[in-house]
Amino acid sequence: MAEREVRLADLAARIGGEVVGRGDTLVSRVASLRAARSGDLAFFSDGRYRAELAATQASAVIVGAAERDATALPRIVGDDPYLMFAKAARLFHAEAPVIAGVHPSAVVAPDAQIAPDAAVGPHCVLGAGARVGAGAELAPGCMLGAGASVGAGSRLHAGVTVYAGCEIGPRAVLHSGVVIGADGFGFALEDGRWLKIPQTGRVRVGADVEIGANTTVDRGALDDTVIGDGVKLDNQIQVGHNVSIGEHTAIAGCVGIAGSTRIGRHCMIGGAAMIGGHLTIADRVVIAGGTVVTKSIEQPGTYVSVIPATPSREWRRTVAMLRNLERMAERVRALERRVPGRESEK
Amino acid sequence: MAEREVRLADLAARIGGEVVGRGDTLVSRVASLRAARSGDLAFFSDGRYRAELAATQASAVIVGAAERDATALPRIVGDDPYLMFAKAARLFHAEAPVIAGVHPSAVVAPDAQIAPDAAVGPHCVLGAGARVGAGAELAPGCMLGAGASVGAGSRLHAGVTVYAGCEIGPRAVLHSGVVIGADGFGFALEDGRWLKIPQTGRVRVGADVEIGANTTVDRGALDDTVIGDGVKLDNQIQVGHNVSIGEHTAIAGCVGIAGSTRIGRHCMIGGAAMIGGHLTIADRVVIAGGTVVTKSIEQPGTYVSVIPATPSREWRRTVAMLRNLERMAERVRALERRVPGRESEK
Amino acid sequence: MAEREVRLADLAARIGGEVVGRGDTLVSRVASLRAARSGDLAFFSDGRYRAELAATQASAVIVGAAERDATALPRIVGDDPYLMFAKAARLFHAEAPVIAGVHPSAVVAPDAQIAPDAAVGPHCVLGAGARVGAGAELAPGCMLGAGASVGAGSRLHAGVTVYAGCEIGPRAVLHSGVVIGADGFGFALEDGRWLKIPQTGRVRVGADVEIGANTTVDRGALDDTVIGDGVKLDNQIQVGHNVSIGEHTAIAGCVGIAGSTRIGRHCMIGGAAMIGGHLTIADRVVIAGGTVVTKSIEQPGTYVSVIPATPSREWRRTVAMLRNLERMAERVRALERRVPGRESEK
Repeated sequence: MAEREVRLADLAARIGGEVVGRGDTLVSRVASLRAARSGDLAFFSDGRYRAELAATQASAVIVGAAERDATALPRIVGDDPYLMFAKAARLFHAEAPVIAGVHPSAVVAPDAQIAPDAAVGPHCVLGAGARVGAGAELAPGCMLGAGASVGAGSRLHAGVTVYAGCEIGPRAVLHSGVVIGADGFGFALEDGRWLKIPQTGRVRVGADVEIGANTTVDRGALDDTVIGDGVKLDNQIQVGHNVSIGEHTAIAGCVGIAGSTRIGRHCMIGGAAMIGGHLTIADRVVIAGGTVVTKSIEQPGTYVSVIPATPSREWRRTVAMLRNLERMAERVRALERRVPGRESEK
Repeated sequence: MAEREVRLADLAARIGGEVVGRGDTLVSRVASLRAARSGDLAFFSDGRYRAELAATQASAVIVGAAERDATALPRIVGDDPYLMFAKAARLFHAEAPVIAGVHPSAVVAPDAQIAPDAAVGPHCVLGAGARVGAGAELAPGCMLGAGASVGAGSRLHAGVTVYAGCEIGPRAVLHSGVVIGADGFGFALEDGRWLKIPQTGRVRVGADVEIGANTTVDRGALDDTVIGDGVKLDNQIQVGHNVSIGEHTAIAGCVGIAGSTRIGRHCMIGGAAMIGGHLTIADRVVIAGGTVVTKSIEQPGTYVSVIPATPSREWRRTVAMLRNLERMAERVRALERRVPGRESEK
Repeated sequence: MAEREVRLADLAARIGGEVVGRGDTLVSRVASLRAARSGDLAFFSDGRYRAELAATQASAVIVGAAERDATALPRIVGDDPYLMFAKAARLFHAEAPVIAGVHPSAVVAPDAQIAPDAAVGPHCVLGAGARVGAGAELAPGCMLGAGASVGAGSRLHAGVTVYAGCEIGPRAVLHSGVVIGADGFGFALEDGRWLKIPQTGRVRVGADVEIGANTTVDRGALDDTVIGDGVKLDNQIQVGHNVSIGEHTAIAGCVGIAGSTRIGRHCMIGGAAMIGGHLTIADRVVIAGGTVVTKSIEQPGTYVSVIPATPSREWRRTVAMLRNLERMAERVRALERRVPGRESEK
């Protein structure tokens, strides 16, 4: 990767913050406090890493305003060091340019539309009427079903599948193994057997969405499944049919969202949370990792239902107590009957 | 998609139910109450959508017997509107016919057997002795290991992998990213290191099975892993080695089933439930989403272990109480000793 | 599969243990007690299968020292029958030899380095500078990004993706759908929108690692994500960026590990456990299936937080009690105030 040196003062002009110490310090990479070497810029935003700050070999660091004097190194001081670091990292690590063209091993339907500056990698397959927008890139082994479309500037990593008719908006990033538009889980019982209900809706993914490896988003049963603009989905997430996820909501790995649930905007959902079907989650709701949501949430705020890991002997007793709660409640009631009863005797 | 108009009375003759209102109303599509337009047939089976029933633009609706008069629209009235709707949807949305043939980019072992009316898509790979039954369809990028077989009328969506020797029954639907027959998780400890145990069983998938995107079913260690006829598996499910799943059981997304567990027939397992290894689950057991099963279940019925999401401040107090249950129990015992003790003093 | 007959006595010399009964008994396969036929060797290590031991058609069995007389069949008796069985199975089921060569449908960058005795299957794609070590095998449809490397003797099953720059050590087994090196989930908030942080670290997978189907391991944000030697990961696991997993740790299916967590050596983590981010788990920790870990664990031992499935009516009452714990605690306090108060009256 080509490295370009930048003066700390010039960097601060781009990412914000105040330079403390020599503004002509040259940096050419971002690195962690621990791995940083001369020429690297590190950042410090979590007190747990104070020892690493003391020992870092970085040439400069980004620190929060409260930590202005936590180091003697040349530094950029600002209110949101994590955001400033993100901006710096983006300056140093620009995406490789897309090399336009369709690899000869790709199998492309005659009426598929591929923008001249888009790239379609080896062994991709594009169905009838599929469309790939300007500057988009399909890495090897991506499959677009008939009529599926990928917006301008989007990037599909190796082995992404988009079923027929589904739409990916502009500037999306889809990681390997993502499946967009598989059938929703829709069956009706008839005499003890399951009758499949055709899933005729689509998936519409908005602009600036990122979807992690092996995440699946099912097509709608009748209407569409909708992923709003700016949504970020981590790996191994399951999004059921007819779900809608509001703009700029972020969802961590291994989350499952059952069918027809509507999630608001600017929500944050922790890893492995499980959200039932036909629910509504308001805007700006935070759901802790591992939490199970079985009812709609109408108020912003943080929601949890997780019991932290406990040494097993202790936990066994807690579970036994839990199963005896009713008996304990009865014993408390019995005591209450007896104690006031004796009072009334007087 | 070609649309064909059907008279409501003719439709009722096919899907069951009684026509109320004009039987000559023409419908040509199914749609949701909200999205329906003129010519569409919608359905109403959940009281939460009453406002949408009132506002729908559908030409006709399917309603339950109890809702016979819930609308003035032409309608089909029956006992199980969801099933009637499923049947109607199947009439309007027939599967596209399979276009037989083997794409020239597919790599097929010389002794693989492909039925003349089957389809093998671009970039598929079929190992030695693999078999594809009559009318079956392999979408692009499917991989069949040596001796693997796919039954008549089955459909593998793009990027399905079936390991060597595994069998998929007739009329199966396997969605993208499904992996059938990877090695089970079998290792023996030897001096602190894990020694791999060869996984020499297979996976046998019955007839009329559907398996959702990115679901994995491991091959048996010695005997086979078995998925019974009519089983429906949603996305992102993990089925361990030597598991057997009884006929017509349905399992929602993100469920994990550990090795050697036997699940009965006609069970329903909610999303993200986790089922331990070496267990037996009886027929007709319902397991709620998110529930953890650590012991065999011998009686039909519904089983749960989920604590619903709670505002975090409240939850923190509950967890603290939970950890103090033993102390509370002791305090109740102390009270009981004291209170009867006083009684005996008299 | 070619079968070779072995005398029981010769087998015992290879796998350890003492022969009881006729040492010249010939066995040529391993099988389960239930499926075994004449010529098969079965094993008995779990008392639940005693009836199957009595009925088995096996020619010989492996049993633990305590079960020396549990059968009259020719047998090998030892302290760890499961390990002995593992060794026997490995003798009878040797891996098929790798057939060297690059399939003509593979797309290989000119400067990729493939060992002469390695195999690269149909439709694989190897980016610039990718390396495949001696005797390694890439099954069909594997993708190696630029500079990715696969160690000697490793086996990638069909459809494995290794992103640019990531390293797989020697003798690894990666199952279908594994994705190594997708971007970690790193975003900073800027005015309610998520700004992607380039993920510039790699994944380094050690020697003798096995990774199950559809498991994902994200690349580090700055430093690397590290999977230690001898680690075994089951299917559908998510490993976040900058996680490190210590040598010889085994993790069952559906586990999620959030970013920057450090897991020790020789740990065992049960299925569907969820481990939060930025934690440290000590060596030799056992985490039960389904457990949620939200704090670092500093002591070896077994940790749990799972409530077992309960009939739903009973569970509903338990949850109601749980929500009323604070009220119950207050009632106990009130009783305590009253009861000693009455005592003091005397």
